[in-house]
Amino acid sequence: MSEEDSPDPDDAVGKVYLVGSGPGDPDLLTVKARRLLDEADVVLHDKLPGPDIIDSIPEEKREDVGKRAGGEWTPQEYTNRRLVETAEAGNTVVRLKGGDPFVFGRGGEEMEHLAEHGIPFEVVPGITSALAGGAVAGIPATHRDYTSSISFVTGHEDPTKEESAIDWQALADTGGTLVVLMGVGKLPLYTDALLDAGKDPETPVALVERATWPDQRVVTGTLSTIVDVRDEYDIEPPAITIIGEVAATRERVIEYLENEQGGDDAA
Amino acid sequence: MSEEDSPDPDDAVGKVYLVGSGPGDPDLLTVKARRLLDEADVVLHDKLPGPDIIDSIPEEKREDVGKRAGGEWTPQEYTNRRLVETAEAGNTVVRLKGGDPFVFGRGGEEMEHLAEHGIPFEVVPGITSALAGGAVAGIPATHRDYTSSISFVTGHEDPTKEESAIDWQALADTGGTLVVLMGVGKLPLYTDALLDAGKDPETPVALVERATWPDQRVVTGTLSTIVDVRDEYDIEPPAITIIGEVAATRERVIEYLENEQGGDDAA
Repeated sequence: MSEEDSPDPDDAVGKVYLVGSGPGDPDLLTVKARRLLDEADVVLHDKLPGPDIIDSIPEEKREDVGKRAGGEWTPQEYTNRRLVETAEAGNTVVRLKGGDPFVFGRGGEEMEHLAEHGIPFEVVPGITSALAGGAVAGIPATHRDYTSSISFVTGHEDPTKEESAIDWQALADTGGTLVVLMGVGKLPLYTDALLDAGKDPETPVALVERATWPDQRVVTGTLSTIVDVRDEYDIEPPAITIIGEVAATRERVIEYLENEQGGDDAA
Repeated sequence: MSEEDSPDPDDAVGKVYLVGSGPGDPDLLTVKARRLLDEADVVLHDKLPGPDIIDSIPEEKREDVGKRAGGEWTPQEYTNRRLVETAEAGNTVVRLKGGDPFVFGRGGEEMEHLAEHGIPFEVVPGITSALAGGAVAGIPATHRDYTSSISFVTGHEDPTKEESAIDWQALADTGGTLVVLMGVGKLPLYTDALLDAGKDPETPVALVERATWPDQRVVTGTLSTIVDVRDEYDIEPPAITIIGEVAATRERVIEYLENEQGGDDAA
């Protein structure tokens, strides 16, 4: 296993682990993610895993491939290049991604880039915030009485654009729970799109801001009121939007729900 | 905190943690789930978390509320009653559920039952097999080039029944990735439903059997061939079905993918 034993230079290539950090609470890392973070030579991360998890990684092995000082996003090409460089230098590399690496995280692209460059890799799933948000808010993703499907979509896209890849009519027609990730800013656009698609204006909606972080907040309303609720409480990213009858379970259980982190819970 | 200090009998009621076990590999428990399993007084479970995780829990605190000897399923009412009884006896109780407690696991119903009985509770999300299956198979749930949504549905329902709550036409129309849980047996019915709904017969499909278990298997085909592939390799529950363009990424990366557990991988 040592370099002396194996003159083949391929043997010096390290392995890359594409690892999901979960929603932000270090206790919601998987056992495997925790061990890999402790044992890796290099951890490439951006800001999405959140400060509590990033601070738990020894500083000398951390490398932030996320936002640059100027506030400009690092091109994906830079992250891809660093993944290959650090692995080819013989390091065991963790690429730490917020939530699950394969849910709206470009983990698929990073995986394909590694394979194209002959870098061995493994994918370690993480708790997606799309499900953690409901868990801590007392809102089940599915419920026998109300819904038999759940769909995740990104709220980054403008639903009024013709080239939008998201079919809000079809999503409304599923009748299932919808969870929108990264959808605080465009909330008015897709709530309108869902109302136009025939969703009941009284459909319960919850916003979960910074799910599992110490300052987590949850607010609730309906498809017709949630934009006002967002504005009243000044809900900001990162947050998820849960749309569907299941969002109404929260008020029935909140008295005994002990997941609440902060004291700033509202509505 | 001791009983002497607090004569109020409410103080003797224990707390219930509704905990997701993840897909089966004990390393994919969250740090919190692992700690709660080690510290709880009682762990109520069924068979879904899988033998490796169940065997890791001290036998004296385990109680199987799942299948009975005769093969008959325990009524949900029995589980609900045991949750309340064990908590009212002052125990710290973990209700361990396969995958995520809120994804097709009746965790929502158990939560509401606890609240109705005044039992304090917390929900600890777990890695759903719907996402773990893709992670270990090299199949991203979403991919910028192919899909901007992902939907989970159960395959327990017969899509030819008029009262089916699942709208396969709407799910097909979303254009996103579909993951069917518990859908090995009715695979011919819902692949037909999706073809009838206009999905391309060449749409890539993967079956992931016992994701993350030591004997995990992955097979692939298309919407028109996957039933034959299932039969050829005798794929059995538990398994998930991943339907969408993302399923084709697997063949592009498999040479460097080191998630494979067993040696029986096929197709």
